Amino acid sequence: MLRNYSVRTDLALEEKERFESDNVEISGVVLEEEYDEEKELKVSRVEIRTENGAKAMGKPAGTYLTLESPNLALPDEDLQMGIATELCRYMKELIDKNISGKEKDISILVVGLGNREVTPDALGPYVADHLTVTRHIVKEYGKYAMGEEQSHLISAIVPGVTGQTGMESAEIVRGIVRETNPDIVIAVDALAARNSRRLNRTVQIADTGIHPGSGVGNHRSGMTKESLGVPVIGIGVPTVVDAATIVNDTMENFIRALESSDALKGVGEVLRSYNTGEKYEFVKELIAPHLNGMFVTPKDIDEMVHHISHTISEAVNMLFISPVIQD
Amino acid sequence: MLRNYSVRTDLALEEKERFESDNVEISGVVLEEEYDEEKELKVSRVEIRTENGAKAMGKPAGTYLTLESPNLALPDEDLQMGIATELCRYMKELIDKNISGKEKDISILVVGLGNREVTPDALGPYVADHLTVTRHIVKEYGKYAMGEEQSHLISAIVPGVTGQTGMESAEIVRGIVRETNPDIVIAVDALAARNSRRLNRTVQIADTGIHPGSGVGNHRSGMTKESLGVPVIGIGVPTVVDAATIVNDTMENFIRALESSDALKGVGEVLRSYNTGEKYEFVKELIAPHLNGMFVTPKDIDEMVHHISHTISEAVNMLFISPVIQD
Amino acid sequence: MLRNYSVRTDLALEEKERFESDNVEISGVVLEEEYDEEKELKVSRVEIRTENGAKAMGKPAGTYLTLESPNLALPDEDLQMGIATELCRYMKELIDKNISGKEKDISILVVGLGNREVTPDALGPYVADHLTVTRHIVKEYGKYAMGEEQSHLISAIVPGVTGQTGMESAEIVRGIVRETNPDIVIAVDALAARNSRRLNRTVQIADTGIHPGSGVGNHRSGMTKESLGVPVIGIGVPTVVDAATIVNDTMENFIRALESSDALKGVGEVLRSYNTGEKYEFVKELIAPHLNGMFVTPKDIDEMVHHISHTISEAVNMLFISPVIQD
Amino acid sequence: MLRNYSVRTDLALEEKERFESDNVEISGVVLEEEYDEEKELKVSRVEIRTENGAKAMGKPAGTYLTLESPNLALPDEDLQMGIATELCRYMKELIDKNISGKEKDISILVVGLGNREVTPDALGPYVADHLTVTRHIVKEYGKYAMGEEQSHLISAIVPGVTGQTGMESAEIVRGIVRETNPDIVIAVDALAARNSRRLNRTVQIADTGIHPGSGVGNHRSGMTKESLGVPVIGIGVPTVVDAATIVNDTMENFIRALESSDALKGVGEVLRSYNTGEKYEFVKELIAPHLNGMFVTPKDIDEMVHHISHTISEAVNMLFISPVIQD
Repeated sequence: MLRNYSVRTDLALEEKERFESDNVEISGVVLEEEYDEEKELKVSRVEIRTENGAKAMGKPAGTYLTLESPNLALPDEDLQMGIATELCRYMKELIDKNISGKEKDISILVVGLGNREVTPDALGPYVADHLTVTRHIVKEYGKYAMGEEQSHLISAIVPGVTGQTGMESAEIVRGIVRETNPDIVIAVDALAARNSRRLNRTVQIADTGIHPGSGVGNHRSGMTKESLGVPVIGIGVPTVVDAATIVNDTMENFIRALESSDALKGVGEVLRSYNTGEKYEFVKELIAPHLNGMFVTPKDIDEMVHHISHTISEAVNMLFISPVIQD
Repeated sequence: MLRNYSVRTDLALEEKERFESDNVEISGVVLEEEYDEEKELKVSRVEIRTENGAKAMGKPAGTYLTLESPNLALPDEDLQMGIATELCRYMKELIDKNISGKEKDISILVVGLGNREVTPDALGPYVADHLTVTRHIVKEYGKYAMGEEQSHLISAIVPGVTGQTGMESAEIVRGIVRETNPDIVIAVDALAARNSRRLNRTVQIADTGIHPGSGVGNHRSGMTKESLGVPVIGIGVPTVVDAATIVNDTMENFIRALESSDALKGVGEVLRSYNTGEKYEFVKELIAPHLNGMFVTPKDIDEMVHHISHTISEAVNMLFISPVIQD
Repeated sequence: MLRNYSVRTDLALEEKERFESDNVEISGVVLEEEYDEEKELKVSRVEIRTENGAKAMGKPAGTYLTLESPNLALPDEDLQMGIATELCRYMKELIDKNISGKEKDISILVVGLGNREVTPDALGPYVADHLTVTRHIVKEYGKYAMGEEQSHLISAIVPGVTGQTGMESAEIVRGIVRETNPDIVIAVDALAARNSRRLNRTVQIADTGIHPGSGVGNHRSGMTKESLGVPVIGIGVPTVVDAATIVNDTMENFIRALESSDALKGVGEVLRSYNTGEKYEFVKELIAPHLNGMFVTPKDIDEMVHHISHTISEAVNMLFISPVIQD
Repeated sequence: MLRNYSVRTDLALEEKERFESDNVEISGVVLEEEYDEEKELKVSRVEIRTENGAKAMGKPAGTYLTLESPNLALPDEDLQMGIATELCRYMKELIDKNISGKEKDISILVVGLGNREVTPDALGPYVADHLTVTRHIVKEYGKYAMGEEQSHLISAIVPGVTGQTGMESAEIVRGIVRETNPDIVIAVDALAARNSRRLNRTVQIADTGIHPGSGVGNHRSGMTKESLGVPVIGIGVPTVVDAATIVNDTMENFIRALESSDALKGVGEVLRSYNTGEKYEFVKELIAPHLNGMFVTPKDIDEMVHHISHTISEAVNMLFISPVIQD
């Protein structure tokens, strides 16, 4: 009902779901889902294939893979390695698709976006911290230095946030990309979800890069193939929900409940007689403006961010250092 | 209207305001306010003098001083020192009142409560980090070691949170108090406010210690004169609001607006015909249960916590190391 | 030769080696060594059985196990788990010996000694950080809460250093022990070795606790069964060498070389004609006094401390959470 | 005597002193010293004016200012501000000289070199942490946004070390410089001194940039006007001494003492009969090779690095944000 009220989500899957719930078909956008019961893992694939689809979704054309599992933030090494293996598989799919023809000696720059000082935004920096970088070793000792047949060149950077550096993360990364010429950038970022149930159990892998307005921080300019000059795989984990989103959602529930309430059915009758625009205007005024700039996050966010960043860095290490996934 | 819905606040001032807004007098509770226009500083003093008052307020009898200033979290050294001087003055008032008769060579244990790993909960640990401790120097070199006439013995501990230690903070602090025998404990903690406008601009100083349910973490047992054996001054700064509180507040606004709405005045008429209990039950169901365990906090919480912890540690240093406040 | 010059080592093995190198037998002290070639692991067992032995060694009577492996600080998960398994086995031996009769539902306090802010001294805090604590869960949900037959109660504390707290670590830990009554304390600390080759490849496990003068920091009072009231297992890893020790060692080599030099054999003849005391006095003056308070440590100490603390916390987790070692 | 033995120092002043102590004049190198008794501040100015001088000194031509004060690492706000004011004055001198003609709206990139995880190497990152960056504000809100007549654009980066990023710091900084076009780079780094008495009481400001082999970390490639394309002011603070240097120095003292010893005068006579080369070869063998890769640093390095980084960031803030130094 409050569709027009702009609710922020960085997940293509949630954007698609908005349309699904209204039974609206968007041409050029395909959603496929599969569920692995044993692994308790749901994988959704949103393909935005046309410019029309991109416009409707408010997201650029490309592939968005969403992995959801209740086990993502559990402190269980085995479960985490299981999920890391899946992440690795899907990252490989998107990387192969985007740098097709090159399979050996790939040079990868991993970018850990976000603010290390704000717990739910520290995910990207933590992933970069735990990564095994190899570029300097291969550069110095040659391609067999790592004792593997392949010798990918992994480098990593934590660019910080604009309030700390005075620069856009995208400026910093573009400079480093031009100087060090990686084949591909993997950018890891904390995201904002629309639905708080998705927090800390969801990873989105997209070959469309990173776009403004994600997560806790404000990256004003995106990181995409257009802006960086090389393909950008974005790995995002929703760790926060906008405070305004949570309020808005509850109010939608509230109005829906009023409309169908037995106890307050008189209210519902009256509400039904007003159109969506009237109700939307009315609700908008009630959402306190000072909620902008606030986010909602779980109290145990420190443990969750530690576990998930560990899983993602394991997935990247798996992919490039000791390749367990073969074609 | 939703009065019965238990809204969490750690601020005595906010508890008192709830009654004020309903024009309810609570016997045994006195509120005094003063405003210093030049310093942009509002000081509210809530005195809970009787057991009745304590019961009505849901907080133990004692003095609660609340300092509010928009300058609290500003990165301006001069403003911060001005506020630190005021904090120092009011802390001194409560300390003197609680250890009357002893003015020299006081032994103080400062406890930095909270979780260093969760940004809005790191306030207490940061205050302890920046403190100048002296107990070991006075113990080793005698009471004139600090080159002052007085030689207070300052010690400090960051007990961590139960999820990290397996122990209640109160157990750890009680053990240390029994072993080191301070005259007084100053416990610094991040709090939950009811009103998000109070975040990061408010400090509460109370001589009733620290009570369960404060802030981000869960201190199940309190730190009071009864439990520790020495007076406890609690210094609290609201850095979060419960997610459920924000939703509840907006819904209160919503219902109030519906009741007086022109556009939707039919709804308001119907709502008015139901009693508070009916409306409360109805709203309660809509507040998503998974919002429990979530908090709301500003995006620039890292800078705010840094600035405020700096101000509080300066106030404590001022009070005990280089006493600028004289009787 | 410079035997009288007090060279600091926290390793009983190094103390014993001093006597070995002079072919001096110390009654009451037994040294046994074994080497596992496959695991590249050398285990030395020093038993100080008599007061005489303790006096000669300058260390209290008890068992000192030293595990040495070049793999200790290698970033290889498999090697680390192998070493963790061995650490687990030997820790279990000393724990069983010291709390004999009690095998189930043991309550353990792990103490992470040292200064988190000084890299080679951060080992103890890092071990505590990575530990799985269970005491609060068992206390709240009962002994089957962890889903194991046994339910040990693990708690952990990082007491900080005196310059940060104004208190001795031993005071803090004694207070907590009296309040929470663990059956045994495991205290983890960074140590000073005499020989820089031992750095970051050695772990000492002793049932005599922690003694003053260890490592980077200055713990003036020890943590022993006498001072805490419960048995204390000390786990120490040498991460630094005293600057004065390194200088002294090189000078010993120098004098020894002069004495047997062909090129400078005249010098050697003269030196041989002086007694040890004369030479010692002479050398002592040359060791710059400002070297006191300085330590020597490797440049990659950050990675080493991370790897070793991970291995030790894994060993403790193994021992108490998922017991893989059976009698 | 052991002059040929290559002793590492990053301080031009120490390099110059080596020649002074031998009464060797180097053409093209000028040393001026002044001492402010009241401020306890010694300022040495080494000007390397010719290529000959540069070759003799092993350092590029340019100006090297060394400020020495016992107060540098003292926890006294007033003393620190006094030193910050002097640092500010001398930094301004070198900046003005290198970007002459441009005095307003200067764009400055501050680079915090070093490894945040190794305490004595964390100086550069800490300076960057405490800096007030303004570039993004001026870019967004215009040149009067800061409320000053001048509006310098300050940005800051902590590039990390090669072992963490897989890239040279110089590559990262060059990329960022090309992308963001600052007028000048200020690079802050921890240095290695030759003399341990200089640790934590010395700051070197040079307009020749940063050169390989400084401090704890290994920056293989330097940051200079040649490599970055803009002038580079290097600010260095010696926080470590190479382990081999300390051993070597003590041995020099030892041999000198032997040569003039009464007690051991026979040894001295023999030693005097050998030439420098013979003695040098002899000593070289005694310096244990595993001391390479080790450094010596004070035990309270954490406090020192905190205090000095605070002073330097205050000096930079003073220079660009609230200019107290006028021409």
